[in-house]
Amino acid sequence: MLANDRVKTYLLQARYGIEKESHRVDLAGNLAKTDHPKSITLKDDHPYIQRDFAETQMELITPVTETIEDLFHYLAAIHDVAYRSMEDNEMLWPLSMPPQLPEKEEDIVIAKLENVENVRYRQSLADSYGRRKQMVSGIHFNFEFGEELIEALLSSQSEQKNYQQFKTEIYLKVARNYLHYRWFVTYFYGASPRSEKNFFREDFLHEAVRSIRNSTFGYTNSDDVEVSYSSIQNYISDLSLMVKRGLLSEEKEFYGAVRLRGGHQVADLEDHGVQYIEMRNIDLNPFETYGISFEQVEFLHLFLLYLLWKDEGYDSDEWVKTGDYYNGIVALEHPLAHTQFEIEAQQIIDEMEHLADTLDLPVSDTLFVHLREMLLDPSKTLAGRLYKESEKSSQAEVARSIAKENHEKSWAKPYQLAGFTDMELSTQIVMFDAIQQGIQVEILDRQDQFLKLKLKEHIEYVKNGNMTSRDNYVSTLIMENKTVTKKILHQHGFHVPKGEEFQSIEPALRSFNLFSSKPFVVKPKTTNYGIGISIFKEGADYEDYKKALTLAFKEDSSVLIEEFINGTEYRFFVLNDKVLAVLLRVPANIKGDGKHSIQALVDQKNRDPLRGRDHRTPLEIIELGELENLMLKTQGYEIDSVPAEGEIIYLRENSNISTGGDSIDVTDQIPDDYKKIAVDAVATLGVKICGIDLIIEHTEVPATDKNAYGIIEANFNPSMYMHVYPYKGQSRRLTKHVIDYLFPELLQS
Amino acid sequence: MLANDRVKTYLLQARYGIEKESHRVDLAGNLAKTDHPKSITLKDDHPYIQRDFAETQMELITPVTETIEDLFHYLAAIHDVAYRSMEDNEMLWPLSMPPQLPEKEEDIVIAKLENVENVRYRQSLADSYGRRKQMVSGIHFNFEFGEELIEALLSSQSEQKNYQQFKTEIYLKVARNYLHYRWFVTYFYGASPRSEKNFFREDFLHEAVRSIRNSTFGYTNSDDVEVSYSSIQNYISDLSLMVKRGLLSEEKEFYGAVRLRGGHQVADLEDHGVQYIEMRNIDLNPFETYGISFEQVEFLHLFLLYLLWKDEGYDSDEWVKTGDYYNGIVALEHPLAHTQFEIEAQQIIDEMEHLADTLDLPVSDTLFVHLREMLLDPSKTLAGRLYKESEKSSQAEVARSIAKENHEKSWAKPYQLAGFTDMELSTQIVMFDAIQQGIQVEILDRQDQFLKLKLKEHIEYVKNGNMTSRDNYVSTLIMENKTVTKKILHQHGFHVPKGEEFQSIEPALRSFNLFSSKPFVVKPKTTNYGIGISIFKEGADYEDYKKALTLAFKEDSSVLIEEFINGTEYRFFVLNDKVLAVLLRVPANIKGDGKHSIQALVDQKNRDPLRGRDHRTPLEIIELGELENLMLKTQGYEIDSVPAEGEIIYLRENSNISTGGDSIDVTDQIPDDYKKIAVDAVATLGVKICGIDLIIEHTEVPATDKNAYGIIEANFNPSMYMHVYPYKGQSRRLTKHVIDYLFPELLQS
Repeated sequence: MLANDRVKTYLLQARYGIEKESHRVDLAGNLAKTDHPKSITLKDDHPYIQRDFAETQMELITPVTETIEDLFHYLAAIHDVAYRSMEDNEMLWPLSMPPQLPEKEEDIVIAKLENVENVRYRQSLADSYGRRKQMVSGIHFNFEFGEELIEALLSSQSEQKNYQQFKTEIYLKVARNYLHYRWFVTYFYGASPRSEKNFFREDFLHEAVRSIRNSTFGYTNSDDVEVSYSSIQNYISDLSLMVKRGLLSEEKEFYGAVRLRGGHQVADLEDHGVQYIEMRNIDLNPFETYGISFEQVEFLHLFLLYLLWKDEGYDSDEWVKTGDYYNGIVALEHPLAHTQFEIEAQQIIDEMEHLADTLDLPVSDTLFVHLREMLLDPSKTLAGRLYKESEKSSQAEVARSIAKENHEKSWAKPYQLAGFTDMELSTQIVMFDAIQQGIQVEILDRQDQFLKLKLKEHIEYVKNGNMTSRDNYVSTLIMENKTVTKKILHQHGFHVPKGEEFQSIEPALRSFNLFSSKPFVVKPKTTNYGIGISIFKEGADYEDYKKALTLAFKEDSSVLIEEFINGTEYRFFVLNDKVLAVLLRVPANIKGDGKHSIQALVDQKNRDPLRGRDHRTPLEIIELGELENLMLKTQGYEIDSVPAEGEIIYLRENSNISTGGDSIDVTDQIPDDYKKIAVDAVATLGVKICGIDLIIEHTEVPATDKNAYGIIEANFNPSMYMHVYPYKGQSRRLTKHVIDYLFPELLQS
Repeated sequence: MLANDRVKTYLLQARYGIEKESHRVDLAGNLAKTDHPKSITLKDDHPYIQRDFAETQMELITPVTETIEDLFHYLAAIHDVAYRSMEDNEMLWPLSMPPQLPEKEEDIVIAKLENVENVRYRQSLADSYGRRKQMVSGIHFNFEFGEELIEALLSSQSEQKNYQQFKTEIYLKVARNYLHYRWFVTYFYGASPRSEKNFFREDFLHEAVRSIRNSTFGYTNSDDVEVSYSSIQNYISDLSLMVKRGLLSEEKEFYGAVRLRGGHQVADLEDHGVQYIEMRNIDLNPFETYGISFEQVEFLHLFLLYLLWKDEGYDSDEWVKTGDYYNGIVALEHPLAHTQFEIEAQQIIDEMEHLADTLDLPVSDTLFVHLREMLLDPSKTLAGRLYKESEKSSQAEVARSIAKENHEKSWAKPYQLAGFTDMELSTQIVMFDAIQQGIQVEILDRQDQFLKLKLKEHIEYVKNGNMTSRDNYVSTLIMENKTVTKKILHQHGFHVPKGEEFQSIEPALRSFNLFSSKPFVVKPKTTNYGIGISIFKEGADYEDYKKALTLAFKEDSSVLIEEFINGTEYRFFVLNDKVLAVLLRVPANIKGDGKHSIQALVDQKNRDPLRGRDHRTPLEIIELGELENLMLKTQGYEIDSVPAEGEIIYLRENSNISTGGDSIDVTDQIPDDYKKIAVDAVATLGVKICGIDLIIEHTEVPATDKNAYGIIEANFNPSMYMHVYPYKGQSRRLTKHVIDYLFPELLQS
């Protein structure tokens, strides 16, 4: 059936989701004594970052994704947000087994949740299992077959006609087989060989094992809890029976390695059928930053397809029970020991590989190589590796050092959001802040920087970080058209450079006399980044005028000639009638120290982690190219010259950040009257989120003075990252303001 | 001073405005008996179209413009609106002298204005001058020198330092000289040689003259009204004295050939100085559709510069009085007679030409040629021409026939707005409706279709006719991105074609199996007009699939492959949650009559004035090119074939209007449930003005049925003209709805 052409097309269609717990620890690897970070919205239903049993036990939750790649993008991003929301001397413990626990069980702090019911439930768990047992962490892997796959399977058989029943049968079979064969997963990926101090009241386990967590010493219900997977009705009624008998406080206390999911409550399964399954037996992989590897997820997906194909035992309850028994054995094997089930394991690998071949599944080349290596050499399994590493120092020390590495990686480039580093910086920062605030982030178009943000029922769409529903359409079209912008601002009494627009070079040449004797600028109407612009600070002769026009007309069919206004250009970032940031951009430069050459000083400045290339960092690498050399030459320098201490040498005329310029926050230094001009001008254009550029000659002169300022342009997609991570001056987290502006309910609650 | 380099640059800088009166007449040339058209907002302060003395006397008012070209654009547009707002059996009388008047003076209907004061004023004029005299029409030409010209002049002399006083002195000199030399204008452009029946109680004038209107028999105050132009103080005090003495009912009753203007009332001139001057002596030029020619305005501008340069007489009151006397003489000369002032006129022409040469003024080559011709041959003056033309029939008959021609021209292409025919059709129609509604229309960027609409203090900016402040930014960005649009609509339960987006051809080729067996479409993500789209209604083989992808990737770096939905595509135009129009587009076609060949039938269909080229008309010419011939061939036809009566033959596969397709309004035929789908989908995208395309297989099937419809795309700049001027079905004046939506106060008042 799987090899049927119609079915094959959809075989890899699936939806994934991961929940992952880890404890916050201090830099020494001890459980953190602090509360859950305040910078994360402290809602019990935070979609991405919650607390599990303990206050230290962070639970990171991915949204449902349709590719494994996306799953890992979100895992990475949520980890980044979690890390950088904690104190910078806290990190995440990478093992399923908790770090050393307090002597007194009561010193383990239960999560301080909002909802009293949630706290009460944790209290009941503490009473039933002890707080120590609840400190074990792991990964829950949620998996759903693609809808079209199920439909294709349905139509390639004739016994079952009902879609929902058919789907439920599929998941029941996969669940039973998973429970039967899960020892296979435990062997390769079990990773909890030892406990740390104070986990066990008395240490029953004198030797290391593959997985304490998956063994009878791990995270299990009492032996009396028995739930049948033979049918959905039996599953539901057994669970409800367990609750009725008091063996479980609630249905969600059932710790089976596979949970059947669908609807909000177990009882909903009856109506909805099984929608997806949750595998709960995955130990944290300490060697992976996010607790699980891409290959592991690929393996799990293939394994589930294999289990769908694989025949199961006739008596389903017996089949599941045998599985529990086998798994118990493997979990307690020594990490370096060959497993008792080596032959069976070998056969499963062969069958899986055969299946993958037959069905043309594009599995990564190394998966089967790795599985076979691990089978042959137990020291290559996760438990084996952790055990061996720990022999050099201790398991705790290994864990601490891994945690440290992850911690450093996450803080190295704080302006980035892991998983989404190909997106624009401002969008990455917006996503960071949204995730932190508990807003669901969906990427509608990655290339196009198109986000859907959702807080409860409130949806906002955002493109490029600040193109939102709060701005009206025609205002952005006004800003897109420099001539129209100037006309409107001028009509409302703002000072803008006088100028004219030309559609061809001849009339522009004829107007030479209108401009020649005064400072003026020639620029293409719509291009950006300073391309095709010529500035004549002292007027120009006809030849230069003509050259400048030719240059500008190469870039655009419309060219503006404008009065040049003397002074310094400032970028005002205005949001909802308030100036939130003012930035000064200074051309690429270095400051002499009397010792180093210009080349050395540039190299030194370029070492700043804020500097990089192609807008992937808040600042750009300073080049020493043709233009910079020319600029040095006109000042009497070579790149080997050693400038005097304190001397500032400019390497470019233009102040663009993209050519190595410095961004300097001057928000607090700009007088209010100029801020009012910016706010009023933006309001005149009807804009809510705007970067408006003012040239000001002397900020100490009142803005009302004649020609005190000139408005150069208004930008409907102003870069935010340069204000968040300026070269100098205070950081202005505009992204957070944008989010609060879009979701005012965040501030109310 | 004028030849000074700094001054020369600005010599032609000026601002212009025209007010022009004409009577509404019926097709026989008799005064209309109807009221002022109701389709024009009946506000006394309509910015463009008002009533002067009589209910039939339309006054067309241009806004202030900075070029003569713009002046004529507005003149043309306002005429078009006036014409097409009247009953289609009414036209405008092209002469200054009114058509035959009623026997009884009381049958001349005074304008039925809103404001009682305005009616009372007209009643007092009727009492003072008689209603007949008030029926004379003409042009008032408003003129202002450029601010920079005045500034340059100011700084090139040293006597006067005060800008405002200097400016006032300039206008006073020009006004006095104009009054002195205005006989010169009367000679060339006087155009009221005869009156029609019942204008004079007794006909004093037995012979034709150059200008009754400019003579003592014309539109003048009583002889006792004397106003000095020697200084602004004298001008003001004389006017107020005349009113005090009861010689004028109000200051505005002063009929001097030049009025000094500035501020709202004459008294304001004291504070504001003279801002501009109003020349009131221009007769309607019957040979020009808009009552005045471009060359005349050019002449007036040059003449005013000449008068600024020309020395004036020592005694200014005497100088003006002599001018009145001279003008009286010229006005009453016979139209074909040489003027008594021929030598003086010759000298003025020479001096003007010399001045134009000295100052490098780019005057049109023919101006001086024409002036000299007219001077040598009086039959070439306006009065001379009108007199001679009238000899063949009668002046009334000539006027009627000119009026008819103008009337026909204005109705020939009702979808166009004269003066702005280079702009997009929808924008032209929006401008028409705005002008009609009394909304001020300013063009901020003509190429960019950028309008500023203003009604009292309420400003709205509009681009492309329907991109407005009512839509939010991100919603338009959503619509710009087909993938995002579909994702959002799908998430909200609407049926959209399933599909995938690819950034390169390889993964698209690998997904062949996903699409090959079903109907599907391959299309570039962002291009429009059907370019690069391939449709496979029966699935495709690998080669064709690859070809289609190659084609699509030539147009865009992102390509969509989508399920093809069977049915008919309808365009729903939604505005503010209402479906205002539904349009069906049918491929280019002809209907046989059993007699004519396909070629002949196409030619016949192309004769429709709605058809043209390049989107300058609501429909496009049907071509008979390669594609059409191929299409005919597959149906077994040649272009010479004669199809049977009633047979419909399609000439294209695609239904685009741009390739000769027919637009058919089906608004009333589409069931409400589909309209609700359109409205809800548009609301989901957060859009207010939207053209949304639905494919519907059978409109009689309920929209809730599975796959009853598919939403193809949503357009943020939907064409409106095709709904206003459909090939078949009812016209839907969406432009008017857009204006009412932007200015809800229009409906309230």
